[in-house]
Amino acid sequence: MDNLNKKILLIGAGRSASYLINYLLTNAKAESWEVKIADLHFTESIRNMTSEKAELVELDIKDQENRRELVNWSDLVISMLPAHMHIDVAKDCIQYKKHMVTASYISKEMKALEDEALKAGICMINEIGVDPGIDHCSAMEQIDSIRDSGGEMKDFETFTGGLVAPESDNNPWNYKFTWNPRNVVIAGQGGAVKFIQEGTYKYIPYHRLFRRIELINIEGYGKFEGYANRDSLKYREVYGLEDIQTMYRGTLRRPGFCRAWDAFVQLGATDDSYVIENSDQLTFRSFINLFLPYNTTDSVELKFRHNLNLAHDEVELFEKLKWLDSFEDIPVELKNATPAQILQKILERKWTLAENDNDMVVMWHKFVYKLNGVLKEKHSSMVLKGDENFTAMSKSVGLPVGIAAKLLLNGGIEEKGIHVPIKKEMYQPILKELEEEGIRFVEKEIS
Amino acid sequence: MDNLNKKILLIGAGRSASYLINYLLTNAKAESWEVKIADLHFTESIRNMTSEKAELVELDIKDQENRRELVNWSDLVISMLPAHMHIDVAKDCIQYKKHMVTASYISKEMKALEDEALKAGICMINEIGVDPGIDHCSAMEQIDSIRDSGGEMKDFETFTGGLVAPESDNNPWNYKFTWNPRNVVIAGQGGAVKFIQEGTYKYIPYHRLFRRIELINIEGYGKFEGYANRDSLKYREVYGLEDIQTMYRGTLRRPGFCRAWDAFVQLGATDDSYVIENSDQLTFRSFINLFLPYNTTDSVELKFRHNLNLAHDEVELFEKLKWLDSFEDIPVELKNATPAQILQKILERKWTLAENDNDMVVMWHKFVYKLNGVLKEKHSSMVLKGDENFTAMSKSVGLPVGIAAKLLLNGGIEEKGIHVPIKKEMYQPILKELEEEGIRFVEKEIS
Repeated sequence: MDNLNKKILLIGAGRSASYLINYLLTNAKAESWEVKIADLHFTESIRNMTSEKAELVELDIKDQENRRELVNWSDLVISMLPAHMHIDVAKDCIQYKKHMVTASYISKEMKALEDEALKAGICMINEIGVDPGIDHCSAMEQIDSIRDSGGEMKDFETFTGGLVAPESDNNPWNYKFTWNPRNVVIAGQGGAVKFIQEGTYKYIPYHRLFRRIELINIEGYGKFEGYANRDSLKYREVYGLEDIQTMYRGTLRRPGFCRAWDAFVQLGATDDSYVIENSDQLTFRSFINLFLPYNTTDSVELKFRHNLNLAHDEVELFEKLKWLDSFEDIPVELKNATPAQILQKILERKWTLAENDNDMVVMWHKFVYKLNGVLKEKHSSMVLKGDENFTAMSKSVGLPVGIAAKLLLNGGIEEKGIHVPIKKEMYQPILKELEEEGIRFVEKEIS
Repeated sequence: MDNLNKKILLIGAGRSASYLINYLLTNAKAESWEVKIADLHFTESIRNMTSEKAELVELDIKDQENRRELVNWSDLVISMLPAHMHIDVAKDCIQYKKHMVTASYISKEMKALEDEALKAGICMINEIGVDPGIDHCSAMEQIDSIRDSGGEMKDFETFTGGLVAPESDNNPWNYKFTWNPRNVVIAGQGGAVKFIQEGTYKYIPYHRLFRRIELINIEGYGKFEGYANRDSLKYREVYGLEDIQTMYRGTLRRPGFCRAWDAFVQLGATDDSYVIENSDQLTFRSFINLFLPYNTTDSVELKFRHNLNLAHDEVELFEKLKWLDSFEDIPVELKNATPAQILQKILERKWTLAENDNDMVVMWHKFVYKLNGVLKEKHSSMVLKGDENFTAMSKSVGLPVGIAAKLLLNGGIEEKGIHVPIKKEMYQPILKELEEEGIRFVEKEIS
């Protein structure tokens, strides 16, 4: 390898990075890339996949000296670490003037580096996974096209879900984990949901979130339900839609999921803020009982139904919880655990993708706009299924990250500073390559 | 005045300190006390009350130099500041070796000063208001007496409420503010409720708290309902009741209050964690509408009833909210306000004590214990009403604080370090003087 090679440092080689690693190695020859992958541990499958094609470096992310040496070696850094761990890497990138790509939401800490990134002359692209990421790209393409043709955006709604593919969907929740289970358990926590609908601000507290769903139909894939993401309001400014009447970002599940999930929320079983006394002595059943009133004669099942106000004939929710073995005396075996950690353990027994299961990523946008005095509506949807090699989640996160890295290294992006992919020079080439790789949007005009 | 005088510094002269100030000034001559009162501002009534009998010092609590000078001058410091502001004063007290008294819960930061307080040879008594305070004293007297006679404590439950006196109770909530309104609005927030019942741990999330009430009857005063305080578990250790089967601390309201208050909790109207967009343009009605689903035809009232699942004939809750003018287009007129701040403004219009209104403090304990193989139960209750001079709240907070200060100055307390009043040497003289001042407990054996 010579100095003309472009050097990519990927930090974080978890399960979700497998497609990205494949992309980097597949493109390495044509693009003259030299790839180093740094993590604390590497799975066997990552080792097999990368053998001789990339250098694996064992790195403790807190080891500043080694981390900086690696960043300094590179031309571009991709961080696939958990969101809260990007910031040290970002500071190194500024110090050594290296571009950076992450799939995570821009944190306050990241945002605060804007001036330094500009001064360093580097570009840091964030929110370039699937959601956030592909949603930004595909929505902005439509929004720009509407505006370019003289239209005025009135409403924008967007929903994304990581789900199980229909052919592998064999449980009453119509759901399996396709992404970090912890994030699924605590989804929606940490602040009220905020959006605007027909010019009226709306706020939903966490404990009401999963009862305020929207129903969506996607041709060929059936019905979905969506619940609101935390802060939709801030994307008005990001998308340049300050005067829009409706701005709503949400998450998709199959119908009935949210109603049953809400049972855990109502109990308090998703709480991650305190440790339960003697949690290692609990069973799934006594865990559920922690949240129910004391009573010497009634069963946990009866107290549960009564406490959640379930009518005698309201069986679907109850069956979903029973199917998880929530009422069984199965030992929890977790010390000093929060409710959320115990619930995750209950769910992982049943919601883990089997060897041959396929997952499915679903995205849906709705655009309402005024053109020549007439109100128009357009829907746009994308469905991607996993295959025997990669999950849809890994592909839909890793591919846009990889494309963004390529664009940066090839000088295709002029912008400096901290960005999300809402500029044409970013989203156009990204959407083009996504389409070549089978991630396509289907548009539909509503009359 | 000569050097034989004992010097008391009272920091914080808010509304709740009036009885305490009166107590200090009334006892000053007999006890040879010299009193300085420090605060940022003084009300006219405090100025009138103290004229020439105490020195009023204008102090910004962040002004370290003046604060330290005052602490150094004193023999004992009473802090009636909001709980989070005690800690700087506490550190000064350690530096200058002065005793200290507060009515607040011991914070982590306060607890951490234990070793330094011991080293300085000073005693810092906390949780010596009404609740916490009088509840500790009166409960520990009973618990010690049960143990001294060979009994074994099985259950302990305790409830306190600051309410409006029956003769001034003229609203459908049977409630008025008798204490910091903000604390009433955010009560129960900031962590799950924890207690133990018949040997089983129980946890209640905030959004279920006001639907899990206990009913209590106090002879001569009628029915009350109680909801659980945040962490009852930690008092097992404090009271030396590590093996107790039931430990429950709660707050009293009149029946029906919690059911209606829960409507605000369910809406999200008690949330203090975020600022509402354009809050100054809201009315009470549009504030309520923020939390309800968008709908072009239904009224706010109908959406409210529907969203909270209120049956057509469930009128009491609805009438309570209507009585507050919750559905009226009255301007909020608060900039950058949180939901909790707006709700407080709505409530203060209606829940403020009128000039001639009296308040009422109610406390109720339940002790279950085994004595000579027999299970026994004892209740103990205290009701104190305000009069034309002082509210019951001001008296029941200020009096035990004042007595504790007197005990410390007279050398009646041997203990050093950080304390709550659970030792006989503290609670016995305090209860004795409380009784002389009309704060009496009525005991009742249950057969």
